[in-house]
Amino acid sequence: MNSFSYHNPTKILFGAGQIAHLGREMAASGLTRCLLIAGGGSIKQNGAYDQVIDSLSKAKIAVVEAWGVQANPRLDKVREIIALAKEQKVEALLAVGGGSVLDTAKAVAAGYYLNDAWNAFTRREKVSRALPLYTVLTLSATGSEMNGNAVITNTDSYQKWGMYSPHIYPRLSIIDPSLQRTLPFRQTASGAFDAMAHILEYYFANDSAKSTLSMNAALLRTIVAMTDRLQQDAGDYEARANLAWSATMALNGMSGVGLDGGDWACHVIEHAFSALHPSIAHGEGLAVIFPAWIAYVSDRAPARFAAWAKDVWNEESAITALAKFRDKLEAWGMPGSLRDLGIKDDDLPKLVEIILSASPTGVGGVFKLDPKDLQALLVLAF
Amino acid sequence: MNSFSYHNPTKILFGAGQIAHLGREMAASGLTRCLLIAGGGSIKQNGAYDQVIDSLSKAKIAVVEAWGVQANPRLDKVREIIALAKEQKVEALLAVGGGSVLDTAKAVAAGYYLNDAWNAFTRREKVSRALPLYTVLTLSATGSEMNGNAVITNTDSYQKWGMYSPHIYPRLSIIDPSLQRTLPFRQTASGAFDAMAHILEYYFANDSAKSTLSMNAALLRTIVAMTDRLQQDAGDYEARANLAWSATMALNGMSGVGLDGGDWACHVIEHAFSALHPSIAHGEGLAVIFPAWIAYVSDRAPARFAAWAKDVWNEESAITALAKFRDKLEAWGMPGSLRDLGIKDDDLPKLVEIILSASPTGVGGVFKLDPKDLQALLVLAF
Repeated sequence: MNSFSYHNPTKILFGAGQIAHLGREMAASGLTRCLLIAGGGSIKQNGAYDQVIDSLSKAKIAVVEAWGVQANPRLDKVREIIALAKEQKVEALLAVGGGSVLDTAKAVAAGYYLNDAWNAFTRREKVSRALPLYTVLTLSATGSEMNGNAVITNTDSYQKWGMYSPHIYPRLSIIDPSLQRTLPFRQTASGAFDAMAHILEYYFANDSAKSTLSMNAALLRTIVAMTDRLQQDAGDYEARANLAWSATMALNGMSGVGLDGGDWACHVIEHAFSALHPSIAHGEGLAVIFPAWIAYVSDRAPARFAAWAKDVWNEESAITALAKFRDKLEAWGMPGSLRDLGIKDDDLPKLVEIILSASPTGVGGVFKLDPKDLQALLVLAF
Repeated sequence: MNSFSYHNPTKILFGAGQIAHLGREMAASGLTRCLLIAGGGSIKQNGAYDQVIDSLSKAKIAVVEAWGVQANPRLDKVREIIALAKEQKVEALLAVGGGSVLDTAKAVAAGYYLNDAWNAFTRREKVSRALPLYTVLTLSATGSEMNGNAVITNTDSYQKWGMYSPHIYPRLSIIDPSLQRTLPFRQTASGAFDAMAHILEYYFANDSAKSTLSMNAALLRTIVAMTDRLQQDAGDYEARANLAWSATMALNGMSGVGLDGGDWACHVIEHAFSALHPSIAHGEGLAVIFPAWIAYVSDRAPARFAAWAKDVWNEESAITALAKFRDKLEAWGMPGSLRDLGIKDDDLPKLVEIILSASPTGVGGVFKLDPKDLQALLVLAF
């Protein structure tokens, strides 16, 4: 088990109706004026917006609103919101939405104090402070509600890049699973797979972090079981709640304890998919690449993949576990190949180029994939 | 799954050699002078003391020392250390030891600003601030390194009581599992059972927090497996590390997510044992009462105990799982009855009286035990 440091200062309020506490929590920190950041308007349908405005108004907190964050959130939107935040002299940010909205708000929080927000992603400028960030989560997937990560796409340069800073952990995140009861199953499943992928990025790093690995197997089994239930009944609160908390746990630091920082090749590859085709949902891109990646790298550490097969899928071999895994994704209606995602064979060289632009010698913290491996893996996933 | 709030601001540095970072971390917070709190001297044998002094001295942090904290730590010692802390005008506390040392330091941290430290336990005074607390853990058991709980014994009144405050979470805890390599197995096993007991207090509260329950089963299985390995080889670092982190996870809030605050009857009962006989190790007292409690209450929620049997012990019934559980404790050399703990039949009425002094109508947040139940349970455990 590797040495590690763990520190996660985010406060969580979890459960139906918890938004009611938002205004009081912000007021207790001395805040009087915030910028609400949101997407295309779904928070007006699911009830989150009205509850937020009601709670803020009771606590006498003024609100400025910034709408229009899209899936695979974009740098130009981040810059636009930073300009608004400066003009409106807000004291804090309040992200109400899914991972795209939260990540946009994180980039705004850090970028507010930089010459340009993109410099946080290229490491050209150091993030040494950020606007205080509060979040209300409406789609469980990215884990962004309880970590210091953000992913933003620079559409000019086809770069979908991530950043981490201890300054962009939300002060408070409210997770009300009942807000997710109206999500189409496709979005639920895509979010669930995003969470599974975070755990899988860590899962094969070593076999000595027994405590984390057994917890991770438990989280993966729970996510699968709860997603199955939600496919039958989108309004199953217990399943929503357990899926939501599992997704938070999947990337709040706990799932990576003692696991060398994880691999993350599949995330880098998927980021290239959606940098090239912004319409690809992150979870769906991951659902295509991860099974192919397991098939491609599992012989580099057979014992670890055999343990995954046993502990997650109750199978004696990685081969049969992988088949079960693919069957499950198919049963959820997830895409099974790059073609299903709308990627053409012509796109492959460009994808390899985008992937290598970030790390020219290859990707993968645990199982290094060189340019030849990447080409072979994409063909396998095609 | 119940609504909950989660907030744990403690930073953890985990792994062999991490004490080297202590001085720099404290200096980065502007500290120049601290009070080191310790037990009977084992930290001079296991190497912790020298590493701590070396790290503090490099960071130019002055140290005053307070020694002599005992197992089942006492209120009179807390008061004595508070007087020293005031006299010496220290800026922070540094607890180096096991749960008793850490809990003493927490009571000092809170009591420093009160008329009397015991008022934090009786709730006669509100804890609204505390001295900053740093810890170096040398025995994994209580989870005190990553929570806001402390348990102290008032020997005048036979009260072993707990307190919680958000102000007494350690700022930083260093967990170096290699410091525990020289522990006698009896202490390792007692600590391991203390950690198991924390999880068990939550385990039977409901069956809807699927995510937490599956994580808790994973933690219990890991603790059992690692303790078995340490019985064979006390120097097995991987087993020490996984046991240590599991014990931290057992009471850092994660194991209780969505589980109604847990039951805690067994802890209240065990606290009576050691209030009456301070020589009883907390983990050993718990090892006697918990199996008896499971036998006594399991028919109140058969499905939850059947799930525990399956998920932790791979048994089809709670009866056979309980037998396996008892066999395991016996194999570890743990006491099996109140008699093994040195408790006499004459003590039982006094024990019931001590237990009821805190809550006259009975104990147990999930399965209420009235005075008649308590009497019957103690006879069963005798």
